Amino acid sequence: MRRGPPGFCIWLTGLPSAGKTTIGKELVPRLVERGWYADLLDGDEIRLGISSDLGFDRKSRETHASRVAFLSKLLARNGAIPVVTLISPYRSSRDHARTTIGRFVEVYVNTPLMVCEDRDVKGLYKKARSGQIKEMTGVDDPYEAPEHPEIVVDTLNLTPAQSAAYILGELERQGWLSGTATPRPA
Amino acid sequence: MRRGPPGFCIWLTGLPSAGKTTIGKELVPRLVERGWYADLLDGDEIRLGISSDLGFDRKSRETHASRVAFLSKLLARNGAIPVVTLISPYRSSRDHARTTIGRFVEVYVNTPLMVCEDRDVKGLYKKARSGQIKEMTGVDDPYEAPEHPEIVVDTLNLTPAQSAAYILGELERQGWLSGTATPRPA
Repeated sequence: MRRGPPGFCIWLTGLPSAGKTTIGKELVPRLVERGWYADLLDGDEIRLGISSDLGFDRKSRETHASRVAFLSKLLARNGAIPVVTLISPYRSSRDHARTTIGRFVEVYVNTPLMVCEDRDVKGLYKKARSGQIKEMTGVDDPYEAPEHPEIVVDTLNLTPAQSAAYILGELERQGWLSGTATPRPA
Repeated sequence: MRRGPPGFCIWLTGLPSAGKTTIGKELVPRLVERGWYADLLDGDEIRLGISSDLGFDRKSRETHASRVAFLSKLLARNGAIPVVTLISPYRSSRDHARTTIGRFVEVYVNTPLMVCEDRDVKGLYKKARSGQIKEMTGVDDPYEAPEHPEIVVDTLNLTPAQSAAYILGELERQGWLSGTATPRPA
């Protein structure tokens, strides 16, 4: 029998360039090492797979987040740990994901806007400030920070590896890895 | 450690009312009984989850099949068995799914058109014949039967439970359940 503790979803939310994908990439192999099936569901990559028709307006972002939630639900109920890295700026979308998936760990990657804008990994802040693109989260589109996330990572004084290690420790402490955690409803 | 033999995708293709979903529902619990994580990805249900924007023209059907393939790839690479039940009338879509997923078992649910039309589970054949709906597979849209499927189920003399048992036997014989099968490329 291959069945073990139930799967769950780790949902990393935060501003563009907050470090979500980088931390996710550090986190996945640590979960795999411990015997889990874990997979990075990166917002941008998943767009190519199931949401190539969608843009970045509010409705499109919500639809995309709801598809990612659907996908994560399937993975989690089959024993795996989807590690979602998605700006997911709206509280309502994340609450919808929580309700859909059930076993849901919201991780707020808390990096100040100024730091994110300074990194500007994809050059999007620059483009948004100069008006080349619109609907940029943090610039002309809101980011609604989580109010009761299971985990907050303050990335300012942590490397991505340290952030991943911190998340892993919290997952353990809260009972997610042993299957004893009690999911919080939306 | 929870890792066992690798997952794979079971893709049931066939005409509308051929019995795909019914057989899939019989198959999933049999796989679960043997210790696998297995999940029914029914074409109609998945549409609500990730393809509510799509219609039934050729391009929409291809896009939908490609999203289902993406989802199945994620499940299979995380050790689960997605059991897809989708008309998937075009050979090119199924080949695309095979290439995407890799570990792919194409099951042709071979039920003659006349029998399917006689069952007409959703009343769609009747609507198509009277011109109320268009693009109905088997009526005014083609169904391209698989040329080299891993498994063919001739449903005429089998109950759905017997069809599922037959598929399970073939999966075993071909080495899919022990992880020794060699996937056929597209």
